[in-house]
Amino acid sequence: MYDVLVKNGKIVTADAVTEGNIAIKEGRIAAVLTKGEEPEATNVIDAAGKYVFPGAIDTHAHLNDPGFEWREDYEHGTAAAALGGYTTVIDMPLQNDPCMTDAKAFDFKENKVSPNAYVDYCFWGGLTSYNFGDLKDLDEKGCVSFKSFIGPVSPDYESLNYGQAMEAMDMIKEFDGRAGFHCEDYAIIKNQEKRMKEAGRNDWKAFLESRPVVAEIVATDAIIEIAKATGCKAHICHVSHPAVAKKIKAAQDEGYDITAETCTHYLTFSNEDVIEKGPLYKCAPILQPKEAVEEMWEYVKAGVFSGIASDHSPCSYDEKFNEILGNKIETVFDVWGGCSGIQSGFQAAFSEGVVKRGVCPTVLANAMSVLPAKAFGIYGKKGDIKPGFDADLLIVDPNKEWEITEESLLYVNKISAFVGLKGKGLPVMTLVRGNVIAKDGKVIAKKGVGELVKKLK
Amino acid sequence: MYDVLVKNGKIVTADAVTEGNIAIKEGRIAAVLTKGEEPEATNVIDAAGKYVFPGAIDTHAHLNDPGFEWREDYEHGTAAAALGGYTTVIDMPLQNDPCMTDAKAFDFKENKVSPNAYVDYCFWGGLTSYNFGDLKDLDEKGCVSFKSFIGPVSPDYESLNYGQAMEAMDMIKEFDGRAGFHCEDYAIIKNQEKRMKEAGRNDWKAFLESRPVVAEIVATDAIIEIAKATGCKAHICHVSHPAVAKKIKAAQDEGYDITAETCTHYLTFSNEDVIEKGPLYKCAPILQPKEAVEEMWEYVKAGVFSGIASDHSPCSYDEKFNEILGNKIETVFDVWGGCSGIQSGFQAAFSEGVVKRGVCPTVLANAMSVLPAKAFGIYGKKGDIKPGFDADLLIVDPNKEWEITEESLLYVNKISAFVGLKGKGLPVMTLVRGNVIAKDGKVIAKKGVGELVKKLK
Amino acid sequence: MYDVLVKNGKIVTADAVTEGNIAIKEGRIAAVLTKGEEPEATNVIDAAGKYVFPGAIDTHAHLNDPGFEWREDYEHGTAAAALGGYTTVIDMPLQNDPCMTDAKAFDFKENKVSPNAYVDYCFWGGLTSYNFGDLKDLDEKGCVSFKSFIGPVSPDYESLNYGQAMEAMDMIKEFDGRAGFHCEDYAIIKNQEKRMKEAGRNDWKAFLESRPVVAEIVATDAIIEIAKATGCKAHICHVSHPAVAKKIKAAQDEGYDITAETCTHYLTFSNEDVIEKGPLYKCAPILQPKEAVEEMWEYVKAGVFSGIASDHSPCSYDEKFNEILGNKIETVFDVWGGCSGIQSGFQAAFSEGVVKRGVCPTVLANAMSVLPAKAFGIYGKKGDIKPGFDADLLIVDPNKEWEITEESLLYVNKISAFVGLKGKGLPVMTLVRGNVIAKDGKVIAKKGVGELVKKLK
Amino acid sequence: MYDVLVKNGKIVTADAVTEGNIAIKEGRIAAVLTKGEEPEATNVIDAAGKYVFPGAIDTHAHLNDPGFEWREDYEHGTAAAALGGYTTVIDMPLQNDPCMTDAKAFDFKENKVSPNAYVDYCFWGGLTSYNFGDLKDLDEKGCVSFKSFIGPVSPDYESLNYGQAMEAMDMIKEFDGRAGFHCEDYAIIKNQEKRMKEAGRNDWKAFLESRPVVAEIVATDAIIEIAKATGCKAHICHVSHPAVAKKIKAAQDEGYDITAETCTHYLTFSNEDVIEKGPLYKCAPILQPKEAVEEMWEYVKAGVFSGIASDHSPCSYDEKFNEILGNKIETVFDVWGGCSGIQSGFQAAFSEGVVKRGVCPTVLANAMSVLPAKAFGIYGKKGDIKPGFDADLLIVDPNKEWEITEESLLYVNKISAFVGLKGKGLPVMTLVRGNVIAKDGKVIAKKGVGELVKKLK
Ligand SMILES: [Zn+2]
Ligand SMILES: [Zn+2]
Ligand SMILES: [Zn+2]
Ligand SMILES: [Zn+2]
Ligand SMILES: [Zn+2]
Ligand SMILES: [Zn+2]
Ligand SMILES: [Zn+2]
Ligand SMILES: [Zn+2]
Repeated sequence: MYDVLVKNGKIVTADAVTEGNIAIKEGRIAAVLTKGEEPEATNVIDAAGKYVFPGAIDTHAHLNDPGFEWREDYEHGTAAAALGGYTTVIDMPLQNDPCMTDAKAFDFKENKVSPNAYVDYCFWGGLTSYNFGDLKDLDEKGCVSFKSFIGPVSPDYESLNYGQAMEAMDMIKEFDGRAGFHCEDYAIIKNQEKRMKEAGRNDWKAFLESRPVVAEIVATDAIIEIAKATGCKAHICHVSHPAVAKKIKAAQDEGYDITAETCTHYLTFSNEDVIEKGPLYKCAPILQPKEAVEEMWEYVKAGVFSGIASDHSPCSYDEKFNEILGNKIETVFDVWGGCSGIQSGFQAAFSEGVVKRGVCPTVLANAMSVLPAKAFGIYGKKGDIKPGFDADLLIVDPNKEWEITEESLLYVNKISAFVGLKGKGLPVMTLVRGNVIAKDGKVIAKKGVGELVKKLK
Repeated sequence: MYDVLVKNGKIVTADAVTEGNIAIKEGRIAAVLTKGEEPEATNVIDAAGKYVFPGAIDTHAHLNDPGFEWREDYEHGTAAAALGGYTTVIDMPLQNDPCMTDAKAFDFKENKVSPNAYVDYCFWGGLTSYNFGDLKDLDEKGCVSFKSFIGPVSPDYESLNYGQAMEAMDMIKEFDGRAGFHCEDYAIIKNQEKRMKEAGRNDWKAFLESRPVVAEIVATDAIIEIAKATGCKAHICHVSHPAVAKKIKAAQDEGYDITAETCTHYLTFSNEDVIEKGPLYKCAPILQPKEAVEEMWEYVKAGVFSGIASDHSPCSYDEKFNEILGNKIETVFDVWGGCSGIQSGFQAAFSEGVVKRGVCPTVLANAMSVLPAKAFGIYGKKGDIKPGFDADLLIVDPNKEWEITEESLLYVNKISAFVGLKGKGLPVMTLVRGNVIAKDGKVIAKKGVGELVKKLK
Repeated sequence: MYDVLVKNGKIVTADAVTEGNIAIKEGRIAAVLTKGEEPEATNVIDAAGKYVFPGAIDTHAHLNDPGFEWREDYEHGTAAAALGGYTTVIDMPLQNDPCMTDAKAFDFKENKVSPNAYVDYCFWGGLTSYNFGDLKDLDEKGCVSFKSFIGPVSPDYESLNYGQAMEAMDMIKEFDGRAGFHCEDYAIIKNQEKRMKEAGRNDWKAFLESRPVVAEIVATDAIIEIAKATGCKAHICHVSHPAVAKKIKAAQDEGYDITAETCTHYLTFSNEDVIEKGPLYKCAPILQPKEAVEEMWEYVKAGVFSGIASDHSPCSYDEKFNEILGNKIETVFDVWGGCSGIQSGFQAAFSEGVVKRGVCPTVLANAMSVLPAKAFGIYGKKGDIKPGFDADLLIVDPNKEWEITEESLLYVNKISAFVGLKGKGLPVMTLVRGNVIAKDGKVIAKKGVGELVKKLK
Repeated sequence: MYDVLVKNGKIVTADAVTEGNIAIKEGRIAAVLTKGEEPEATNVIDAAGKYVFPGAIDTHAHLNDPGFEWREDYEHGTAAAALGGYTTVIDMPLQNDPCMTDAKAFDFKENKVSPNAYVDYCFWGGLTSYNFGDLKDLDEKGCVSFKSFIGPVSPDYESLNYGQAMEAMDMIKEFDGRAGFHCEDYAIIKNQEKRMKEAGRNDWKAFLESRPVVAEIVATDAIIEIAKATGCKAHICHVSHPAVAKKIKAAQDEGYDITAETCTHYLTFSNEDVIEKGPLYKCAPILQPKEAVEEMWEYVKAGVFSGIASDHSPCSYDEKFNEILGNKIETVFDVWGGCSGIQSGFQAAFSEGVVKRGVCPTVLANAMSVLPAKAFGIYGKKGDIKPGFDADLLIVDPNKEWEITEESLLYVNKISAFVGLKGKGLPVMTLVRGNVIAKDGKVIAKKGVGELVKKLK
């Protein structure tokens, strides 16, 4: 007698779409069965006509909890993730108070957030200039990777320079960890911004010019070379442009273990949105030209990305339009950067990819579940529809049309670049370890059902 | 109630090695279950301590039946395959009488061989200068690919020149088929051989010099370029050298659907074996230097090969040492070319790869099952351990040591380059569609259990 | 007292355009002097306002003499070359009777043509299946390179297959020679032509489709690989397409001594000319699309080509429009292939390159004089404006506008694809070893002034 | 009547070595003549049996004058250059007081040094964070390029970060200038040094580890990408390693105007010298392994380098062994970095290249004269043996053996890594604009004969 049987669905894995059933016991997939094989189960879910995806993994999200709960918290953020289809969220170490830079912060955070999570979560470890001595501890605690910035991003979290990156990678290599980087060259960004300001520019085009793609290329090149020199595994966060993806693919083709992610917004929106609509489309790296968006999909199809992340970077309405922490927003450069997208990531990727561009659903299963789980060391438990894996499933109705509205957002702050987007193909049920968390657009589980996932050893 | 339950094994797929059980009903995998999930079954097989691989697919074998049964026939050849672990053999269209060049030959062969097969089999369609008009028919009959020669190989089967290859690929592309080629430039081989003979050479080094790697490179380059120009899917047969693999990988990295296979002998033996031991090590392309063998394994690991084939090319003892069809063997150039390896392919690959070189078993599952099944259009039925797939399984005892002896060979002609090879890791049970065909070194099924497999549409 | 002083010209070399004077004694450049240095000379030529180029070298021309003088002969062909600005013509070994395939033919030809030549000439040695034993002799006689066909071209001259090419290159490497090839894969061309005919096609588009660029790519790839394998220097004749140039540049960038030439017609005309105007624009390889023409100029600028040749391939009017050697022309495939361009090569290249596309004159000096002389082993004597070099000079009026007319052609057969072409920049004087051969559109020397040039040892 | 005639020498240019004569009038080459052409001249120099090179150009030297004359000054530094064969020295803007960062400093320096120079000199313009507004002025004054540091090098001269480099290149591109960089990533170097110190390391191996080649690769990659993005011409200073040269060659092969130089010491010494002999072999980038040295010569032959510079970085004995500006040298990191090599550059390159490794003399003429002159905009006046060019000549006796001794050094400080080096092939006469500056190991001109050379417009 199984706990749950999901039957008659079109099961999507990285290899194929096949009809079949999934039996779940004690939170894990106990059996994957052919169509017709219907062992008894307490709860039988009929997925006829629908896709059953492995739950998506958001490799990059900022849930801001603890410390900045007025931007986002675990209760709201993971509820949105659950509705959207991310069954595991790899939470970023910064915009947290304290930052996730030592074992104590790990425990503190875990205690704080675990009662409120709707989906499972991993922690990125912090990687800053001052916590090199804590990296091994954090790895032992279960951090799945370590995140640092090469570019200037967050006031509460120092960026690394390339020398520190090299030192960190020498250390992380020791315990076979992975080092992840926000790759925009710090100095290029800072100086371009300064130039724009000196030129009296305060328009969205100036913002775009302040973050030229060469900044992303330079930093990515540097991290790739340092990864080659140290032998450390690297992860390039939120790749925005095909010229960057090309560099990463070249290193992968040479055989280096250098993974990367892109984000749904880089596969959906363009720089024209920034110019036309402004604040909500400000993020870093920037949104790129339309032709670049098309080319990015080619790299998704080629398997270059271990993650189509949300880079969910929420903020209050004021922080986009009025002031941030008491500082008035006077120019485009002051506006909070970040797209809130954790709820929309999967459905937008499905609609833009599978529906609009004819991408095979297997590509999304690979890019959003299998490859991220492998990159972050949780494959075996997460990331696939196989016996023994956690029963994290996402049932998608491929024919359902949708438009994203503010009211539908479960975030603390109901603003997003995705509001107004229309598409087709909607998650209609989300299971995390066999529990139905969301159904028909509503979160139906009790909070606290989400659990911490540690890197598998 | 299932027919068979294979339990407690370490199930090997392309992604992972996990403990679990496999339930089989009516020849197909009905369920893949976590360890401990043991539904009732008529026949329970305990695989504790053993690997359970998806049955290997031999993408390239010459079974010579009908027409040349004194070299090999389906009864002996597929029995050997079964013992060795190839559960599907993709049989070559030549050294058959008639050659598999039209629909009639397809039916004739199918009728002749089906009563004798121990494992499942696909047919390569013939691709010669005179049967372009039959290609579509053969595709509809179920041929999984079409095989031609660029190099001079077989007296009963005309090679194509590059122009004919282009025309054929234009036609095969129409029905989304795949064109496979023995890539050694005809003229280079022929002329090098002539030069050796003119120089009075009759030594094994001369034979090696008569087939320089540049011949393989030139032909492979040409087929790659023609594939790019026509848009037809291509398959490069029996790649022997890393310089060739490099060219193929480059095309794959650019996104072209160009698959390739290597053979176990190219991963096991070297040109020194040819020089020292002669006739049994003569094959085409030739065995390469030891460093090349090591590099070939890197390309296996990188996923370049959709197949580690046997290129089983049997002959009588006389054809290696005395005379062929009445013609005396007077020089190294006259000796029959071909290694008989269908029985040894998997175990040698396992021993040389997993045991000796630390290759992960998942690499073999990918290279010998998943990728071949995808390349030849039978994935979904063959090539993986997933519900709905045929229950083709290979149980391997990783600790069993072995030495290959003549007596152990099931071939019509008990000669092989593999005789004398020692290693570790042995197939101890082979299932085809749920039937136990071989067990503990013996074939235990009745002949005729093997079935034709057609390309899936 | 010098024989000649060319003064006040803008001297063009591969490095720079500088004003200065050139003093000539006994046929050679005795001194290159700064402007103002005007030693006495019997004949003072004022080149003020004009460019003084090193005489251009036509790396590829068919003068057809002896044997086919009704198509072209030395008297007419070299007169046209002189007028056009090619001061050295490297004459092809075929469409000669006898072909230039042994030392006897060399002497015979030299005796026959030397009384009639207006410019200097080198001989390509023949490279056919039957004269491998004569190659060393021909090299010693002074042949500057050896020419063979990979594609099907000439009825009187057998093409080599890749095996023969390899054998030949092994031999030519022995005396450090260079092997040149017409690179179009024989079988692709032949088979495409057959397909067109079978489809009942007889239009110029069909002709173009019968010689797809992949044929040129395949043959070029093969020759490059064979050159790498043998270590022999190679020359790729008349490159028509940037995809081919890209392959050659890649090999050059890797450090291989693989030279190539293109032709003026590939830098001037496009496939549209073939379709619109037919017979006179038929050549092999074919004229390519306009975008390809633009890209070809980039490869010229990058220094990839050691020669912008004429591939002068003259024929009678009948052979383009009525019949060839008694065979009626019934289809586009029967029409004589070849453009007559030896008179127009330099001026068209100057007009299309320097005038229309802003190419620096130094680029032409490099591509048409320096690099060809180096590739063919005559640098030191030919190819540059330096003391000790032969005083082969070409004075060009950059402002003179022109239109090519039939009447202006000095060929035996006054037909050419270039008739009707308009442009700017015209050779107004040509000197060969200090002799003024042509002046103001007229040949003024006596025939026989041209001499044989042998490869320097 | 000419001023000077250099006769009977083997004139070396980038293209060829030919016997001939050179007539000089008013400091410039008035004529280049064939052997035997011997116009009258006041001073006839017989160079029989010797090479006549175009004077070498030292693209990178620190003469330290004004401001640090106790390290080196124009009198001593240019005397050494003259003896060694550098007829033009491109002097670095730093270790000057004032630094060459504005027009005033240009004039001040020119006034100060011009009375003391024995060879001609150009000025690198300074490129620091604070003088962007002066770049155009400096260009107009005649600076041939602009030099900045990416790595941490000099206390008196701020390094640029990549953002400032980008801004600077946007500006320099406006007047078609060239931006040169010391490419070692600042942060990697600084941090590696810190790590070594923290580990208590104070050995020469630690110094080498503090400057890993990845630092040079990262900075070079970044400058290449910024050059591509801005369209500005770039120059990579003192390339030490073939992995860096490979990156530069790739960009050059793509068609970008990115030049580079290496130094004689990178072609002569190895990291073993540093470990064995210490202080005098400390420089930045570091000396590399012996295999790297061999590979560097391949890049020289391939024409990748526009300059084999000295990077003459003199210091007092104390600064290598005791103290620098009052600071005690306590560790390997404190030792002054820099090799004094301006006197030895040509002879070491000739001996190591032409004599030891069989490099053609033309390669040196190209790498040390032609390409540097082109890269720095002084070709036409400097860098070649052509009429109209300055008569800067270097007469080399290829058979003369030598050993470098302290006493022979003309520097202010007679210390150098080159002391003790033995070789063959020695400059025996140096002419600058027709003046014999040095002869048979002695400087024989009066100081002040050297002149400023401005970038040609
Ligand atoms: Zn980021
Ligand atoms: Zn982020
Ligand atoms: Zn074969
Ligand atoms: Zn075969
Ligand atoms: Zn040709
Ligand atoms: Zn021709
Ligand atoms: Zn430096
Ligand atoms: Zn320096």
